[in-house]
Amino acid sequence: MTDEPTSALLTDRYELTMLQGALQSGAAHRRAVFEMFARRLPENRGYGVVAGTGRFLDALERFRFDTGALDYLADAGGLDDATLEWLAGYRFSGEVWGYGEGETYFPGSPILVVEGTFAESVLLETVALSIYNHDSAIASAASRMTLAAGGRPIIEMGSRRTHEMSAVAAARAAYITGFGSTSNLEAGRRYGVPTAGTSAHAFVLVHDSERAAFEAQVAALGADTTLLVDTYDVDEAVRTAVELAGPKLGGVRIDSGDLSDIAARVRRQLDGLGAADTRIVVTGDLDEHAIQALAIAPVDGYGVGTALVTGSGAPTASLVYKLVARSGEDPGSPLLPVAKKSVGKPSRGGRKWGFRRLDEHGTAVAELVLERDEAPAEGVRPLLRRLVAGGEVVGREPLADARERHARSVAELPGTARRMTRGEPVIPTHFGAPAQV
Amino acid sequence: MTDEPTSALLTDRYELTMLQGALQSGAAHRRAVFEMFARRLPENRGYGVVAGTGRFLDALERFRFDTGALDYLADAGGLDDATLEWLAGYRFSGEVWGYGEGETYFPGSPILVVEGTFAESVLLETVALSIYNHDSAIASAASRMTLAAGGRPIIEMGSRRTHEMSAVAAARAAYITGFGSTSNLEAGRRYGVPTAGTSAHAFVLVHDSERAAFEAQVAALGADTTLLVDTYDVDEAVRTAVELAGPKLGGVRIDSGDLSDIAARVRRQLDGLGAADTRIVVTGDLDEHAIQALAIAPVDGYGVGTALVTGSGAPTASLVYKLVARSGEDPGSPLLPVAKKSVGKPSRGGRKWGFRRLDEHGTAVAELVLERDEAPAEGVRPLLRRLVAGGEVVGREPLADARERHARSVAELPGTARRMTRGEPVIPTHFGAPAQV
Repeated sequence: MTDEPTSALLTDRYELTMLQGALQSGAAHRRAVFEMFARRLPENRGYGVVAGTGRFLDALERFRFDTGALDYLADAGGLDDATLEWLAGYRFSGEVWGYGEGETYFPGSPILVVEGTFAESVLLETVALSIYNHDSAIASAASRMTLAAGGRPIIEMGSRRTHEMSAVAAARAAYITGFGSTSNLEAGRRYGVPTAGTSAHAFVLVHDSERAAFEAQVAALGADTTLLVDTYDVDEAVRTAVELAGPKLGGVRIDSGDLSDIAARVRRQLDGLGAADTRIVVTGDLDEHAIQALAIAPVDGYGVGTALVTGSGAPTASLVYKLVARSGEDPGSPLLPVAKKSVGKPSRGGRKWGFRRLDEHGTAVAELVLERDEAPAEGVRPLLRRLVAGGEVVGREPLADARERHARSVAELPGTARRMTRGEPVIPTHFGAPAQV
Repeated sequence: MTDEPTSALLTDRYELTMLQGALQSGAAHRRAVFEMFARRLPENRGYGVVAGTGRFLDALERFRFDTGALDYLADAGGLDDATLEWLAGYRFSGEVWGYGEGETYFPGSPILVVEGTFAESVLLETVALSIYNHDSAIASAASRMTLAAGGRPIIEMGSRRTHEMSAVAAARAAYITGFGSTSNLEAGRRYGVPTAGTSAHAFVLVHDSERAAFEAQVAALGADTTLLVDTYDVDEAVRTAVELAGPKLGGVRIDSGDLSDIAARVRRQLDGLGAADTRIVVTGDLDEHAIQALAIAPVDGYGVGTALVTGSGAPTASLVYKLVARSGEDPGSPLLPVAKKSVGKPSRGGRKWGFRRLDEHGTAVAELVLERDEAPAEGVRPLLRRLVAGGEVVGREPLADARERHARSVAELPGTARRMTRGEPVIPTHFGAPAQV
C-alpha cells in the first residue's frame, strides 16, 4: 500500500485559480448547478453506458486538501493564503444526483448534476470527468461486446494494454456490462470481480516440451484447467492435452490464427476424443465485430483485451461538466440559467432532469431532458438518483445492482441497439418543458 | 493518501497459476530472459518513444505480496499453500536492462530485458506492460505534437479525458517529450512537472458579466494572467481584457471556432490596442495535425487535451513481454533461445541487444538488434542501460535526463521523422549477428 494521493490533486490547476478569483469577487459563494453530459456519442454507437458512479463517490469522500497537498500548493506558488486556507477546510456540502450506474445514456442526458456553492462544485470538475469519461468509455464498448457474445461468457484481460490503475477500473466497468470475469487481481480484491486465467505461451516455452508443460499445469491446477494449445501445433497440442488430462479436461484456449476455422476443427477433434464437454475459449485481438463474426463458431467463451481497455475506438466518452445555472450575489436568490456561446460548442442553460419514455411494450422510444422534475405521464421512467445529500454520500450501492440495472436498461432499448455498424443514437433526445415533449 | 495497492496485484491471475505449475514442475527455478518489444508501430508513425521506465522501477520496488494481497489470494482460491508461501517471500533478485526513458524505438527494439528465474520474472509481465504500454503510447503521440509545434510551448491539459491516474502518468510522459507544463496538480506534486492554467468558461458565467469576471481574475491573479475570451464575443472580450488589465496583459486563450482566423484577428486587435506582448494561447481538440496547420498563425502556445491522453489514435503501444531464452533444469546451464510458432504472431528467440547506427553526420540510419553485446563498429550507439542489478534499482534518474535524452534522440532521426502523414518507420530494424548487419 503506497502513495495514492488524496483525490484533491487529481485536479486541473485552473480550478484553484478560478477559486481564488471567485473568493475575491464573492462569486465563490453563489449557488451553482453543474451538469455532466455528452454532446454526442462516438460515431458508430447507438447508446452510451454510464459507469464510474461508485468510484466518483469514493473520490468525493476523499477529496480533501491534506497537509501534503497544501504544502505542495503553497510551494508551487500562485495561490494566496486566503485560498489555501479555504482549501484546508474543504468538504463538499452540496447535493449530487446522477443516472444510476450501468444505465444507458444519450446525447444531452444529464448523467451527473452537482449543486452547491460555485467554489465547492467547480473543484470537482476534473476528477469527476476523469472517472466518468474513462469508465463510461469502457462500459460503452464493453456493452456492445456482451451483446455480440449473446450470452457466451467473456473474460476481461486487457490490463497489460492500459495504465495499471485504468486496468482495475476497466475490469470493474466491463463487469457492470455483463463480462463474467477479469484477469486483473486488484479488481478482484477491490471490487469483488471474479478473476480468471491459467497460463501463457511462456509457460509452455519454459518447459522442455509442450507435454511437460501440460503435465505440470494439470498437476498443479487439475484436469478442469484450460490449456493453451497454439504454441506449436494445435492438433498435436489438443491430442496431448486430452491424453494427459482425460476427457474431463476443462478447456482449451486458442490465441492465434483463423479462430473460426480452428475452433471448428478443435471441436471436432475434442468430440472425437470423447471430450465433448471440454470448452473452447478464444482470445487474440477480439473486438465486438470479431465476437459477432464468431457467433456461429463452436466457441464457449471469449477473452477480450486491447479493444476493451481502449474503448474499441472511443477511448474517452467526451463527457463535459458545465455550469448551467447559478444564483445572483445572494445565494438564496433564484437560479438563473447560464450558457456560453462559443462557436460550435454551445451549451444549454438551466438545470435539467432526465427521463426515458417507453411505449406500451416497455420499449424505450425517447430520452426526455426536461426543465422540471416531474413525471409528465405514464410510461416515463425517471433516470436521476440521489447520490449525495448535504455532502453525505447516500447513493452507494453494490456493484451487482449496477450490473442488473445495465441488463434491464439494455433490454429495454429497441432492437437496433444490437446493430454493430455505424448509426445514430437508437432513441432521440427531446429537450424542453414537460408539456412539450 | 489512501489505498493504492501494492503493485503486486496489478497483475493477471495467470501469472500466479503459471507460477504454481512451475513450482511443481521445477521450471520456476530455471534462468529466464524476457524481452519487451513492439512487433510494429501504429500505422501512421515513423518512430515510437519509450516512457514509463522510472514508473516501472518504482512499481518493481513495491512489488510485494503483503498481508492484504495474500489474504485476498487465499480467499479467492485456486492457489496452494506452497505458492502463497513463495509469494510472501517474493522479492525480485534479477537483472534488468532497458532503453533509456525518452529514447526513440522501432519495431523489434528490445526496450526492456528482464533476466532472473522464470518465477520471479514472469510475475512482472502485467505491471511492466501496463506501465510501458500506456506511457509509451502517450509519449509517442506527444513527441509528434512537440515536433509540430516547432518550439512553441504546449500545455498538457487532458486529465479530464482519461482515468484520473493515467492523467498523472500522461502529464509525465508529455513532459519527457518536451511539453512545457501540465494542468495536472498531482503531476506537479509527484514528478515536479510545471503546472499551468487560469480559468474556464464557468468562471465567466458565474459572474454577472464577462467584465466582472475579468476584473475578478486580474485582481486575483495579476495582469500577467491569461483571460479566456470566447465565452460570448471574442472582439468585445479582447477589448475589455486590455481595458482592464492594460497592455501588460499576459495572454488570451481561444478555445473554439476557426483558431487560425481568430488568432490572426485577435493578434491585430491586440497590437492595435498596444498589447503587442500579450500572448495568444489556443486550445480545443488540438492534435498534431491541427498544431501543424496553425504553424503560420500568430499563436504563442497550445493547450492539448484529448488527443494527448488518448495517444492520438493509438492509445496503447502494443508492446509485448516474451520469454526469449531459458536455461535447462540446471539454472546454471546455458540459455537456450525459445519462441512460439503461433500463426501471425511469431516471436524471435534469444536474448538481444539494441544499438543505433549513425551515419557520418550523426543521423540515425538503422536500428540494430543483435545477438551479442558488442559495439560492432564506430558510429554505433548502444541503447540498453542497466536498470536493476541483483534486484537493486540502479538506473533511476531525474525526469530532466529523460527529457534531454528524448530531445537528442529525436534530433538524431532523419528529417522524415517530422512527417505527420502515414508512413513506415523512419529507419529500418536489422536483426542478426554483429557481423551481418
